[in-house]
Amino acid sequence: MTAVDFGSFVEELAAKSGEVILPFFRTSLSIDNKGTVGRFDPVTAADRAAEAAMRALIHKAFPEHGIIGEEYGSEHPDAEYVWVLDPIDGTKSFICGMPAWGTLIGLTRFGKPVFGTMHQPFLGESFTGDGEAARYRGPAGDRELCVRPCAALDEAVLFTTSPLLMSEQDRGAFRRVEQRVRLSRYGGDCYAYCMLAAGHIDLVIETELKPHDIVPLVPIITGAGGVLTAWDGGPALSGGRVLAAGDRVVHAAALKLLQA
Amino acid sequence: MTAVDFGSFVEELAAKSGEVILPFFRTSLSIDNKGTVGRFDPVTAADRAAEAAMRALIHKAFPEHGIIGEEYGSEHPDAEYVWVLDPIDGTKSFICGMPAWGTLIGLTRFGKPVFGTMHQPFLGESFTGDGEAARYRGPAGDRELCVRPCAALDEAVLFTTSPLLMSEQDRGAFRRVEQRVRLSRYGGDCYAYCMLAAGHIDLVIETELKPHDIVPLVPIITGAGGVLTAWDGGPALSGGRVLAAGDRVVHAAALKLLQA
Repeated sequence: MTAVDFGSFVEELAAKSGEVILPFFRTSLSIDNKGTVGRFDPVTAADRAAEAAMRALIHKAFPEHGIIGEEYGSEHPDAEYVWVLDPIDGTKSFICGMPAWGTLIGLTRFGKPVFGTMHQPFLGESFTGDGEAARYRGPAGDRELCVRPCAALDEAVLFTTSPLLMSEQDRGAFRRVEQRVRLSRYGGDCYAYCMLAAGHIDLVIETELKPHDIVPLVPIITGAGGVLTAWDGGPALSGGRVLAAGDRVVHAAALKLLQA
Repeated sequence: MTAVDFGSFVEELAAKSGEVILPFFRTSLSIDNKGTVGRFDPVTAADRAAEAAMRALIHKAFPEHGIIGEEYGSEHPDAEYVWVLDPIDGTKSFICGMPAWGTLIGLTRFGKPVFGTMHQPFLGESFTGDGEAARYRGPAGDRELCVRPCAALDEAVLFTTSPLLMSEQDRGAFRRVEQRVRLSRYGGDCYAYCMLAAGHIDLVIETELKPHDIVPLVPIITGAGGVLTAWDGGPALSGGRVLAAGDRVVHAAALKLLQA
């Protein structure tokens, strides 16, 4: 069974997660209840309910698979197949009502990411990849995802979620790249990586990531022809400080500045 | 004829604008053609085509009305009714494939904003107001927009499109507020004001705005119960440095810090 066979199951997971999350987005349920004891945190409630729903589906369909999730920790993380779940990547966008958040669902086999999806239930769109190819489905149609060429750093469009999330030292390294690019933009979370896979931007630089923030995105980025590493040039699967690029030339140039 | 009667005409304008813009968003048409003479700028092409289409509809329906637009300047700006058009507010989001951009359509009578819409054709949603009330229609339902209370600056969620857009002095003033709020987020353009009107965030602080960036949003913000001024406390209709808040207490506290 190849990873690609998991495609329709992943759609089922994504649909279920979306059903559970949407009642909490931009509704009266989403208003957080300031000042009460045991304050209600709507995004955490949505995150947990969606992860629990996805875990239940995985338990039923693939009881031998492992699961690593943001909210409920790890089950059988040494299994051949392990699901990596982040029901709401971009929780700060979510609580602000901004649509740049998504549900991340990844699958690893022997520790290697083999399938990944970013699903946005409010927009009804998904970005999916298996490391060989990547695909978009949603209001912009149904089409292959492919990074764009970018000949040099000074032609690149860069994204980061927020420089405020970086340590002072990391922010200094980030600024060295930022000062050289054509355009630097903030916000985005998982959307930035998907826009890179779709050929709309050229670079994403982030820090402080968890594995569940990045593992599901790896097969989308590499499937679209992009390159993703840690700031030290090694694998990015454990999260931390991440550099993604559509073009290897730009990746190399940014890596050099981050390490300077 | 009251401003409210213009509602269905504004929907027609928004629908036409969306039809014209969407073929340029996240499609092969939207890839800018680097390195050629007379470089093709897709967002400018979409902006111009949409504004031309809206102007044609206004000329036909209301030949006596004035028009102020981002792309084609002013026609009869001293007319009783003047339309204020910004087909793509958030052009940098647009070129990056991010959905946080919108079409702004405003109407002034004797210089006072009486009707405004932010329409997002990719998401299929609109935020509309007339200064007395404001309404949302889209994937999150059909409902009244209402700002939320916020008792103090340290409970507030703040948005700005990017501190990189500010002069050094303005950025210093902005930082004084930013250091005091609960959460500061970047990105958003017109969406930030609409999220304020919808009660999801508490403050928007921006600089360097043009009248067409802000006039259409005024009746939405005030219709939802919010307050919007320039940094000097005066009217914000001419753009420049703008401060919007859902709660007057937070507006006053932020204004004091901006003026410190």
